[in-house]
Amino acid sequence: MRSPVPDYLSEVLHTCFGDTSGHTAGYIPELAAADPDLFGLALSTVDGSVYCAGDAGVEFTIQSISKPFIYALAIKEHGLESVLQKVGVEPSGEAFNELSLERESKRPLNPMINAGAITAHTLIAGQGDDGARRDAVILDGLSAFAGRSLTVNESVLGSEMGTAHRNLAIAHMLRSHGIIDQEPAEVVRGYTRQCSINVTARDLALMAATLANGGVQPLTGEQVLTAGVVRQVLAVMTTCGMYDAAGDWVTTVGIPAKSGVAGGIIGALPGQVGLAAFSPRLDHHGNSVRGIKACERLSQDMGLHLMEVPQPARAVIRQARRIETDGGARFSLYELQGSIQFAAAERIIRTLAEEPDHETGVVFDLSRVHQLNDVGRRMLLEAISRLTLDGHQVTLIDPETVLNYPDAGGGTHPDVVTTLEDLTNRRP
Amino acid sequence: MRSPVPDYLSEVLHTCFGDTSGHTAGYIPELAAADPDLFGLALSTVDGSVYCAGDAGVEFTIQSISKPFIYALAIKEHGLESVLQKVGVEPSGEAFNELSLERESKRPLNPMINAGAITAHTLIAGQGDDGARRDAVILDGLSAFAGRSLTVNESVLGSEMGTAHRNLAIAHMLRSHGIIDQEPAEVVRGYTRQCSINVTARDLALMAATLANGGVQPLTGEQVLTAGVVRQVLAVMTTCGMYDAAGDWVTTVGIPAKSGVAGGIIGALPGQVGLAAFSPRLDHHGNSVRGIKACERLSQDMGLHLMEVPQPARAVIRQARRIETDGGARFSLYELQGSIQFAAAERIIRTLAEEPDHETGVVFDLSRVHQLNDVGRRMLLEAISRLTLDGHQVTLIDPETVLNYPDAGGGTHPDVVTTLEDLTNRRP
Amino acid sequence: MRSPVPDYLSEVLHTCFGDTSGHTAGYIPELAAADPDLFGLALSTVDGSVYCAGDAGVEFTIQSISKPFIYALAIKEHGLESVLQKVGVEPSGEAFNELSLERESKRPLNPMINAGAITAHTLIAGQGDDGARRDAVILDGLSAFAGRSLTVNESVLGSEMGTAHRNLAIAHMLRSHGIIDQEPAEVVRGYTRQCSINVTARDLALMAATLANGGVQPLTGEQVLTAGVVRQVLAVMTTCGMYDAAGDWVTTVGIPAKSGVAGGIIGALPGQVGLAAFSPRLDHHGNSVRGIKACERLSQDMGLHLMEVPQPARAVIRQARRIETDGGARFSLYELQGSIQFAAAERIIRTLAEEPDHETGVVFDLSRVHQLNDVGRRMLLEAISRLTLDGHQVTLIDPETVLNYPDAGGGTHPDVVTTLEDLTNRRP
Amino acid sequence: MRSPVPDYLSEVLHTCFGDTSGHTAGYIPELAAADPDLFGLALSTVDGSVYCAGDAGVEFTIQSISKPFIYALAIKEHGLESVLQKVGVEPSGEAFNELSLERESKRPLNPMINAGAITAHTLIAGQGDDGARRDAVILDGLSAFAGRSLTVNESVLGSEMGTAHRNLAIAHMLRSHGIIDQEPAEVVRGYTRQCSINVTARDLALMAATLANGGVQPLTGEQVLTAGVVRQVLAVMTTCGMYDAAGDWVTTVGIPAKSGVAGGIIGALPGQVGLAAFSPRLDHHGNSVRGIKACERLSQDMGLHLMEVPQPARAVIRQARRIETDGGARFSLYELQGSIQFAAAERIIRTLAEEPDHETGVVFDLSRVHQLNDVGRRMLLEAISRLTLDGHQVTLIDPETVLNYPDAGGGTHPDVVTTLEDLTNRRP
Repeated sequence: MRSPVPDYLSEVLHTCFGDTSGHTAGYIPELAAADPDLFGLALSTVDGSVYCAGDAGVEFTIQSISKPFIYALAIKEHGLESVLQKVGVEPSGEAFNELSLERESKRPLNPMINAGAITAHTLIAGQGDDGARRDAVILDGLSAFAGRSLTVNESVLGSEMGTAHRNLAIAHMLRSHGIIDQEPAEVVRGYTRQCSINVTARDLALMAATLANGGVQPLTGEQVLTAGVVRQVLAVMTTCGMYDAAGDWVTTVGIPAKSGVAGGIIGALPGQVGLAAFSPRLDHHGNSVRGIKACERLSQDMGLHLMEVPQPARAVIRQARRIETDGGARFSLYELQGSIQFAAAERIIRTLAEEPDHETGVVFDLSRVHQLNDVGRRMLLEAISRLTLDGHQVTLIDPETVLNYPDAGGGTHPDVVTTLEDLTNRRP
Repeated sequence: MRSPVPDYLSEVLHTCFGDTSGHTAGYIPELAAADPDLFGLALSTVDGSVYCAGDAGVEFTIQSISKPFIYALAIKEHGLESVLQKVGVEPSGEAFNELSLERESKRPLNPMINAGAITAHTLIAGQGDDGARRDAVILDGLSAFAGRSLTVNESVLGSEMGTAHRNLAIAHMLRSHGIIDQEPAEVVRGYTRQCSINVTARDLALMAATLANGGVQPLTGEQVLTAGVVRQVLAVMTTCGMYDAAGDWVTTVGIPAKSGVAGGIIGALPGQVGLAAFSPRLDHHGNSVRGIKACERLSQDMGLHLMEVPQPARAVIRQARRIETDGGARFSLYELQGSIQFAAAERIIRTLAEEPDHETGVVFDLSRVHQLNDVGRRMLLEAISRLTLDGHQVTLIDPETVLNYPDAGGGTHPDVVTTLEDLTNRRP
Repeated sequence: MRSPVPDYLSEVLHTCFGDTSGHTAGYIPELAAADPDLFGLALSTVDGSVYCAGDAGVEFTIQSISKPFIYALAIKEHGLESVLQKVGVEPSGEAFNELSLERESKRPLNPMINAGAITAHTLIAGQGDDGARRDAVILDGLSAFAGRSLTVNESVLGSEMGTAHRNLAIAHMLRSHGIIDQEPAEVVRGYTRQCSINVTARDLALMAATLANGGVQPLTGEQVLTAGVVRQVLAVMTTCGMYDAAGDWVTTVGIPAKSGVAGGIIGALPGQVGLAAFSPRLDHHGNSVRGIKACERLSQDMGLHLMEVPQPARAVIRQARRIETDGGARFSLYELQGSIQFAAAERIIRTLAEEPDHETGVVFDLSRVHQLNDVGRRMLLEAISRLTLDGHQVTLIDPETVLNYPDAGGGTHPDVVTTLEDLTNRRP
Repeated sequence: MRSPVPDYLSEVLHTCFGDTSGHTAGYIPELAAADPDLFGLALSTVDGSVYCAGDAGVEFTIQSISKPFIYALAIKEHGLESVLQKVGVEPSGEAFNELSLERESKRPLNPMINAGAITAHTLIAGQGDDGARRDAVILDGLSAFAGRSLTVNESVLGSEMGTAHRNLAIAHMLRSHGIIDQEPAEVVRGYTRQCSINVTARDLALMAATLANGGVQPLTGEQVLTAGVVRQVLAVMTTCGMYDAAGDWVTTVGIPAKSGVAGGIIGALPGQVGLAAFSPRLDHHGNSVRGIKACERLSQDMGLHLMEVPQPARAVIRQARRIETDGGARFSLYELQGSIQFAAAERIIRTLAEEPDHETGVVFDLSRVHQLNDVGRRMLLEAISRLTLDGHQVTLIDPETVLNYPDAGGGTHPDVVTTLEDLTNRRP
């Protein structure tokens, strides 16, 4: 069978292709000269299958899409508290007024505007003055997200340095307020170099998928970030990633996203996919026109909106029944299924609360449990502990060790068996 | 067994109880006189089990927590497009400057600031001048969310009307810009009445759970809102619910939320729970000090952060193997499990793409599938269609009709059976 | 001889007449219906000769031009300190954002924006709730400036009350911050009535001339305001009178001014003239198009710019010479002329400083002194005192008592004579 | 006689000396190290007598006080229109937000904030890249205002360059918007050098007096600026010179002024004096505490407020009477006196309008006219022309050619005589 996913992606590409509104970034000669008709889409699942359509293999400069990744690396290096002292997390509500700082703290409002991104840049590789080392760490860092060795586009770098006055203004302002300590000209050189790293839409999809996958690069398997850092970055992308239209983006598309002035745009849906589009014509917000369109279409078709919640098809307790072992012992058997988060665990516990008969053992069949998050696990463990204290004999059917019962040293703890037969065949 | 959930809730309550910082709302005499030590917590699951701790049964006025619900009812009545023409969705970034309107459109920035909430209020019950009818519709509407008949606190209403100058200023300004058409004094009377409706923390937990449950009230089963409206409301609560600290709230708590000046606060986690806290002392943002604290604790403990993604414990394809029926027909059997969204469906399709042998039938065992969202279903249907066109005989084991295969009229479509035995026992 | 002034005024009128750009105030039906072609100019000197051209006798409503006068009456009634606690003096820099208040104090920024003008309105007639009394005091007050009994245009008043939502918004906001204490609806009714008082361009020229004349109405001779209040009002008109183009107005026209939405505009040049124009078509700032044009022309032609300083044609010391009386007494005679302010007095004193001969008397001939301000007088008195202490006999020729030498009781003081002959004819 | 002016200045100095509040500028090490107790006052009349008190001869750096003078030189070099395209004239209303530009034009709001001053700096010496030439032209230019060769304080220059990040931010921002074309680092070096020029309070008083004197340096007599440029500069100083307290300054002090961060402050009263104070401790606006105090005192004592208008002591028509020459010709004689501006000329014309008898000649005795501005002169000329056309014989007694009657070539024009006797002695 031929997979329908590439066909779907092609169809989205063709639907959006006809929109030739917008203009390539005018203020950087090298970007202004980009072929405006290029259009690529890429999609990577969290387990690393990548789909591409159109010009998804064409290289272009990452620009502002580097911001969330460098912010992530800064947090990885210094810790969240330390980074929050330098850069805030509030949406700016102003499109181009990127010079705005928080009234009191003089922190840049968030890491997605230039002031915040430049500050985050200076936090890489020890926050010192060794620009060459910072360059190397940043190139390596972005390469780790992409899963291949990226390179710098030297001609774009040269072109941007010639018009870097706005960023130099920002860097000097940050220096004047003591937010950064390094030489502004060197900082802007390094930051511009960061923005001039070449990527393809395919690379970006994998970089986004690394975020969607809790920080693990889908292809290389490298744990580039911890889950905590990813959570912070995705949250900031949600409210600040699309400049001054945060509310509009959150309501209509509902995916953490970031765009770049070369025409790239990424979206990351936690647990599912990383998306990327590339088309150089920009709207007046500086976002790729066809890229935005494709993201809206993908979000809608694929139900990727953060607030979209599919209803479970089945109850978490598939079946509850009384059984008796060959040895005559009586048990209440609970066959659990699906995803056990707080709500499901609560449902199980509510049923267990009616389990009055201390003589009866309790068996949980976990072999159909698909997903178990931390709170679900802790609640189940607490329930097992309480049942045991109440005098119940607890048994787990957990062939793949989904629950991962902690080895509590001495004391009572449940039996763990692989199949129901292992239990029922027991003899006293 | 005694459920640990109430114990947990009590523990959270006691942990936060000692924080007596903040002050009751000073500008409304009746609120200023509230007992500052009251503290209640409530939690409702989407299937309607409700847990309470402390003063969760004490009535207080809903105040601004009415805003998301009235906004929802306005969309329900007029449609989203129509409401968007009157009220925007962007965070305001300014704490108390609730008089700010969008520069061009003069729309209130969002429905969570007073200007937007007052505008939403006027859209209820036909947008006309019949205040009494609007009062009734609003009281009924909020009661539907709570699942019981709510009442108005007449003494708070009287107390607030005496100091309603700020809201009167807003209403006259809205009228001067043509955003509202009604008599400002009447609008503010009605809006103040809306804010003076009595609720308990328990009520609020159920109201929030109605949002978390896709619009269906957990106890009454009433479909108060459609899923689309709920999505819009939750998205706006995410970015605008906690006033000027949107970014901070999204990164640290990560739950769509709304607070009220009487000390209430709600949080709604899609698909899981509605939370509510009540404690009258407010911080300088106007949010309940202990309420915020409890929400942070609950979010953290229960893994409720929107960006928190549990990794699946198991692959979606539990097993793929070749089988042969008694009649000698050969099949590839795919046992699917867990939750089938885009990423899982893609994984299945990727495997099917390697299915070359047209002579072989394909069997999907769906009996362990826990959840199937719209895109997952469509992708599976597309795969079945393509396999059929390729010449495969497709059979579904779907005892509970999870896939709900459409009746395509004539033409080939898959066999649906209840158990594998139904298939293997077949004879030619 | 026929005076050229009316001819000049007519010429200015005809030069500006052709500009039919702009629109009558759209938001008040009665104003929108005004005849847009009306155009009147009037000019009153500080001694009360009034020149008119065009429709200078047509009545229209005073609108915002009432603001500086009511501000003046509020200061007259309560004192400057007290009024400054309620209304500031800083330009707002924002055109239509008349709801803005000072960040900390919540005072309206200045009395020329609506918020400040409404506040000033409430300070008239005891700051109490007696609206009818306030109406009467305001009508009398403005009539005193105009020099005739003004009346209220009831149809404009009715028309504006129907669209007073913006002002009601402002009044409720002021009330919510405790800047005003009265009932907002009553305040706006009174303020709108104040704005609906009928005036002609001729009236306005006389009202402006009252300010230019140090508070004395040129025709009636009534001291409506003290010089100190006038100074405050003119200073505020200079920086805040023309809304958001304060700097532009001060540099190009340089006259304290105020415009109204019915098409009136006044300018007051201290010590010289009051100007007024009336033409209903407004620019986007809300100022009369032809009125502005006429003011610019008049300012330029007539050298009325505040920063324009004519050089004196002659030295303050017309002649200094030695004389001898018939009785043989020798004197140094100083013939002073022109205007004696600080600089001139300093020049006189500098010359006197070289007067070494204690035996010589000193005579000041003041009969050609045109103007003598307070500091000039004090310096001259100090010089006389020092000369006397040095042993000089001082004599003043001051036929019209320009210097007004204080009667110091006992002690030496100068002789005052009427002509030089009175002195030279003296015999010992 | 000893002049009381130095005594007065000393008294003001001693009165203000005790106020030791405020702090020296903290952010520039060399300024922070200044002796905070220094306090000097100086006052120069427009005819060049200079009074000093305290440390008026101590050198300090001019800092922002250079702004109005460099703005003036830029207008002198390029014309007002051209400069207005680069720098506006509106007060900013914001204290330290010196990065703010006009929303549309991106021009700095005015030349008194750093952004505007840096822009004005780049306009000197041809707007090109020759920094050394610009340095020289600026040093020469400021020296011309001071009347002596000023020098640069190299140690302050070095100290400021080390902390020039804020100005570098501004310069890069200006460059990014195309407001300036030069290399930002070079511009900031030159601007900082401009600010590091040493002056004394005495120098500043003379610089201010040059403005007060219509652009003519009182001591050297050099016409440094034209009257038109001076008018523009004084108007901008009035509204923008004292940062965010424009309205407060205009109402209370009412003198065009400018302060500098080293503790200097100047005030210029058109036609009268230039004032200067120096005291390094600054208030939170960055203005010298004791300097402000001394200015307020001087303004109040000396009646220097712009809106203060002394009433003329005498009528402009000293006497009007009929005379007859020895030859029998009859004349109406008008003895004029004082200052003839518009209002006075109008008074004369009004009287002349009643001159019906065409047979009678008209004589104007101008020998007591003290001051005659352009409009006054033109009105008098027009009156003479009309009288002549009406058949009157007009004669001027104008011994010092105050009226300067134009030589109209052919045609009738008035006789000009030196004394009344010249006329009355005539015989037919």
